[in-house]
Amino acid sequence: MFESAEIGHIIDKATFDAEEPALREALLEAQYELKAQGRFAVLILLCGIEGAGKGETVKLLNEWMDPRLIQVSTFDQQTDEELARPPAWRYWRQLPPKGRIGVFFGNWYSQILQGRVHKHFKNAVLDQGVASAERLERMLCDEGALIFKFWFHLSKQQMKARLKSLQDDPLHSWRISPLDWQQSKTYDKFVRYGERVLRRSSRDYAPWYVIEGVDEYYRSLTVGRILLEGLQAALANGSQAPSQPHAAPLSLSLDKCGLLDSLDMEQHLDKEDYQAQLIAEQARLSGLMRDKRMRRHALVTVFEGNDAAGKGSAIRRVAAALDPRQYRIVPVGAPTDEEQAQPYLWRFWRHIPSRGKFTLFDRSWYGRVLVERVEGFCGPDDWLRAYGEINDFEEQLVDAGVVVVKFWLAIDQDTQLQRFKAREQVPFKRFKITEDDWRNREKWPQYREAVEDMVDRTSTEIAPWTLVEANDKRFARVKVLRTINEALEAAFAKD
Amino acid sequence: MFESAEIGHIIDKATFDAEEPALREALLEAQYELKAQGRFAVLILLCGIEGAGKGETVKLLNEWMDPRLIQVSTFDQQTDEELARPPAWRYWRQLPPKGRIGVFFGNWYSQILQGRVHKHFKNAVLDQGVASAERLERMLCDEGALIFKFWFHLSKQQMKARLKSLQDDPLHSWRISPLDWQQSKTYDKFVRYGERVLRRSSRDYAPWYVIEGVDEYYRSLTVGRILLEGLQAALANGSQAPSQPHAAPLSLSLDKCGLLDSLDMEQHLDKEDYQAQLIAEQARLSGLMRDKRMRRHALVTVFEGNDAAGKGSAIRRVAAALDPRQYRIVPVGAPTDEEQAQPYLWRFWRHIPSRGKFTLFDRSWYGRVLVERVEGFCGPDDWLRAYGEINDFEEQLVDAGVVVVKFWLAIDQDTQLQRFKAREQVPFKRFKITEDDWRNREKWPQYREAVEDMVDRTSTEIAPWTLVEANDKRFARVKVLRTINEALEAAFAKD
Repeated sequence: MFESAEIGHIIDKATFDAEEPALREALLEAQYELKAQGRFAVLILLCGIEGAGKGETVKLLNEWMDPRLIQVSTFDQQTDEELARPPAWRYWRQLPPKGRIGVFFGNWYSQILQGRVHKHFKNAVLDQGVASAERLERMLCDEGALIFKFWFHLSKQQMKARLKSLQDDPLHSWRISPLDWQQSKTYDKFVRYGERVLRRSSRDYAPWYVIEGVDEYYRSLTVGRILLEGLQAALANGSQAPSQPHAAPLSLSLDKCGLLDSLDMEQHLDKEDYQAQLIAEQARLSGLMRDKRMRRHALVTVFEGNDAAGKGSAIRRVAAALDPRQYRIVPVGAPTDEEQAQPYLWRFWRHIPSRGKFTLFDRSWYGRVLVERVEGFCGPDDWLRAYGEINDFEEQLVDAGVVVVKFWLAIDQDTQLQRFKAREQVPFKRFKITEDDWRNREKWPQYREAVEDMVDRTSTEIAPWTLVEANDKRFARVKVLRTINEALEAAFAKD
Repeated sequence: MFESAEIGHIIDKATFDAEEPALREALLEAQYELKAQGRFAVLILLCGIEGAGKGETVKLLNEWMDPRLIQVSTFDQQTDEELARPPAWRYWRQLPPKGRIGVFFGNWYSQILQGRVHKHFKNAVLDQGVASAERLERMLCDEGALIFKFWFHLSKQQMKARLKSLQDDPLHSWRISPLDWQQSKTYDKFVRYGERVLRRSSRDYAPWYVIEGVDEYYRSLTVGRILLEGLQAALANGSQAPSQPHAAPLSLSLDKCGLLDSLDMEQHLDKEDYQAQLIAEQARLSGLMRDKRMRRHALVTVFEGNDAAGKGSAIRRVAAALDPRQYRIVPVGAPTDEEQAQPYLWRFWRHIPSRGKFTLFDRSWYGRVLVERVEGFCGPDDWLRAYGEINDFEEQLVDAGVVVVKFWLAIDQDTQLQRFKAREQVPFKRFKITEDDWRNREKWPQYREAVEDMVDRTSTEIAPWTLVEANDKRFARVKVLRTINEALEAAFAKD
């Protein structure tokens, strides 16, 4: 979930200065419209890594908008009055009324995260807290609230550098409390449990937006734009409660530097290296599948990718390493009648392997948030709730010992064109290229947005996406095999 | 939640025989319509006390309807195939397709309940299980499923008698496994944790229906009628997913013997007894409020009741026992502007007392499921989700040490008429009787249904309703005070 926020997003001052005035004006206008309509309240929850810019962002929002209509609440130590009442009371008393914006700096998530990081309780209690938060937020939304949840992120290196620079700066050093420094040590825990909390509490009605906090201009523009898009969508909605104000991509990639851009598409392997490495990785996989520790696990791999990215041939190279009794390849196309008569995930559940076995999905449950989203086969209500449902589904697999490895095979547009043309030339490959492929190609930008959004919303610590640079098929095949092997070894090591 | 199912509901054979044919025909018709529409699947979950008629009911449903379109699944010991896969797999593979009915005999709830009763884990893990169930069910409903959850109930005495009679009957004794008998010992635990599970997983889209299992005719007609009403509501709904098929009251009271009927309205106190008991209970309350254990608690009482049932005067008798610094009376009328700009529960949260203090609510958050429901001030979507929200709210209070005592002051229609007329006679009481009161009186049956439904859905072990027979005001006042005192003493005893 944090991948997009560790890329090193940067926006230069000139771009920022050019964009800021229009953004401010639009935000202010939305704010007054919010007040005029008086239909719903806006609640902004801020969490994340120390030093990632939470405070600066709140300051900026107050500068940009009318601060009389924004109410900022901090929740540090509980007051006597708060301690004498149920824990939720402190939040209720600070809720913004309809027409206003409330910023909760520290909130129910900070509280349960701190508790878990400091080992006051275990995951079951953390999950109880998340479930309570979910109920509270769903109720607030049902009662007409628009909720934005921002997680300000820094990679570990970025955080260390940031804290150091702040400490060295006499104007800023007062900000660094001992607690912050201590957090540097507990960074890993904070991010691990943070990921669990974000994964379980990201829902269609209130998803988490993860913001890379290093660059001030990027951070500020991104938060401003997300708020603006959500506000405008909710204000445009005629009905009582705002619906689907969070349909915009989680990462706006304002610097035109999304996850897919950050790939080095030049990577390749020459034939000799390829053959040596391929054989080595295939042997490794074959050994791992026969390892007795495999009896406690099952393996599921998901292959998604651009058309002609080489999914099929990658799958064949994986399968070549295996005993046919151990694995099954499930090609996912249009659902059968029987499948259509069931909930969406049913057709995938039926192919979940038993322990010791391996299922390779050639396309997968991600169809709903890729092709179905882009082609309009389902509405935003459906694909937006699918992210949460998919994360729940994969958590159930992983909890039961299933190792889940997900690949997006990425090629660039030129490579795709070459391969399409080549397929048309070769008689026995002609079946592989259809009108649909050409049509999909025209929707390249929409697919691209859907892919990045999918990765942002479903790449989790327990089931991360691996983006595979697939312009060079040899490179891609070896990377796929190696990633599977590493995932299996990591799972065995944890037993 | 189990009160309505411990009344001793009975329907005689003649009534059953008269009603059965029409019910069967209607169910069969609904079943074929379900198949013809093919828009959604029906999932029936069965849980509850051993011997309460789960098995007999399934048998009967198969007799009544077309068994080719019903698929019954039992989930006892996991098979080898199931053990080798994630726990949810066994449920997914048995899901009924659209157009069909699936009966899950034993299901995700039985599993977590057994685990908790046998101390395999604590409440936090139980709650994790409930949260997973909630997500699964919400997703199934979003994907077009209609879920009925039935809890077949027996009081402890009823269960013992039932198991004994089955054991003595040579035709039935094979049914009683050692496990059942053991459960007789663990009845209390089963009911306690069952209540927790039901309370937390009863949601508007899939509430629990609690069925008293003693009388075969009552049980069968009730289940049949609930299924029929829900099915017809869902089938009549034109949109993709069935919406609000569960708006009918949880207890249909087919024997015209609801909770309110089961009250002995003749109860009364003569003046002498009244004064002695009133003073004694007031002194007891005064002492309890000054007890040092009160520092760990707060007290919240809710007064609801028929118009002219004597709420105000009962509240005054309670308040008379108290130091004015300790308590606050909150009369709940139409919300203020400020309150209307907030989520519904906000206006009550603001009056939650701090530790050591006592708030008396004269009418309360139950307004949404009483007056707002009956008068149509809010839609079914709102009042149906309110039950779950209210249970969550009260759980938060109780978890924080707040003692929650809820009264419904019940009078009969004649008594109300007398009091209305008396009020009109006395000049200084005339302000107490308005046009509204007369209008409400015309809606007596609707209010009655709303009250019984409210009690069924929100009378919980942690915050039970007390129905007060209030035809005799003296009796009612003493019962109110005594109930508060007992609740405080019970809370202190648990510390």
